[in-house]
Amino acid sequence: MFYSKEDLAHLEKRERINLLNSITGIKPVNLIGTVSAEGNTNLAIFSSVVHLGANPALIGFILRPPQEVARHTYENILATSVFTINHVHRDFIENAHYTSAKFPVEVSEFDTCGLTAEYHEGFVAPYVKESELKLGLIYRESIPIPLNNTVLVIGEVQNAIIPDRVREAEGHLDLSKVDDVGLSGLHSYYALEKIAQLPYARPQELPPF
Amino acid sequence: MFYSKEDLAHLEKRERINLLNSITGIKPVNLIGTVSAEGNTNLAIFSSVVHLGANPALIGFILRPPQEVARHTYENILATSVFTINHVHRDFIENAHYTSAKFPVEVSEFDTCGLTAEYHEGFVAPYVKESELKLGLIYRESIPIPLNNTVLVIGEVQNAIIPDRVREAEGHLDLSKVDDVGLSGLHSYYALEKIAQLPYARPQELPPF
Repeated sequence: MFYSKEDLAHLEKRERINLLNSITGIKPVNLIGTVSAEGNTNLAIFSSVVHLGANPALIGFILRPPQEVARHTYENILATSVFTINHVHRDFIENAHYTSAKFPVEVSEFDTCGLTAEYHEGFVAPYVKESELKLGLIYRESIPIPLNNTVLVIGEVQNAIIPDRVREAEGHLDLSKVDDVGLSGLHSYYALEKIAQLPYARPQELPPF
Repeated sequence: MFYSKEDLAHLEKRERINLLNSITGIKPVNLIGTVSAEGNTNLAIFSSVVHLGANPALIGFILRPPQEVARHTYENILATSVFTINHVHRDFIENAHYTSAKFPVEVSEFDTCGLTAEYHEGFVAPYVKESELKLGLIYRESIPIPLNNTVLVIGEVQNAIIPDRVREAEGHLDLSKVDDVGLSGLHSYYALEKIAQLPYARPQELPPF
């Protein structure tokens, strides 16, 4: 079905939000772990983590308008300059999903959502023990997006924990080996199955189409 | 295995690029369709498309440093102010993947990669006929990311083509109904299977963990 701009504008509000959150395709599901200056841990689910570059190793995520609601994750990152990104696997989708509930600032989602904080190599931000593939990042920059008051928050990778069984030749990963999941919209979770690994594409080496 | 920043820096170059492109988790796979002021069509695969907001309906994607190599997609967007985002399905992964090969500017990836340009409702940018779920966008803004000279390119959704069989109640989609695929790194493709749809998360409605 073809939806014009007017058709999309006239959808019921929740339907419109769900639809527009879904139409970019599958999204990664990550838990971002932080700690406040006072030592309170925080954990929040994000589906907007995006690779920005390999050298330096930069990763960004989109933050909803900071003035709209409390943004404990962002406040903690600004206070302590570190955060972790933890992949979500099939066996703790529900735990991860419920970190999106609006808990008071003094409450840690690790406690309310049945997940376990763990620490590596002196890094002060908490990792998620249940996650097998996870990264520690140092905060680098916030880039405002004035069109809708969101913010692109950028970190640089400081360390990575990657199980050997996920690693394949030449740095490729098979995310299905740790039952990584994906998301569409804000509510629909997907299992992943690796089905193809294609070579670097050169014009003179096209397969027959 | 734990990788420190130094461990990551000392990986062989291609291994490092593949690994760092893979560690954010599953990524969407989209073909961006554009047309030059002269009427030449262009099609390119992107894995960095990200939802920015529903009202207005904004979508962004990350462009590699424009000064590094020819960026036909970006030049066309700046020239004509429109582009399309087309989901990639399992039956044309290879065609989509090979749009990343560096073809000369006068060559259309629609022709070299066996895909078909189609047009809707007077929108001048080409859609991909083989894609069942696709969007038309008007260019809104480019936001430079000085840390690594990439650019966040932002468009506003003008229209959407979504098959009825993908639509579920309340605007949710099941992307596996059109065999949408995901990507990790630059080479590894995944099939998707919808396994859960969870409710809006409220602190007072936590399931037992």
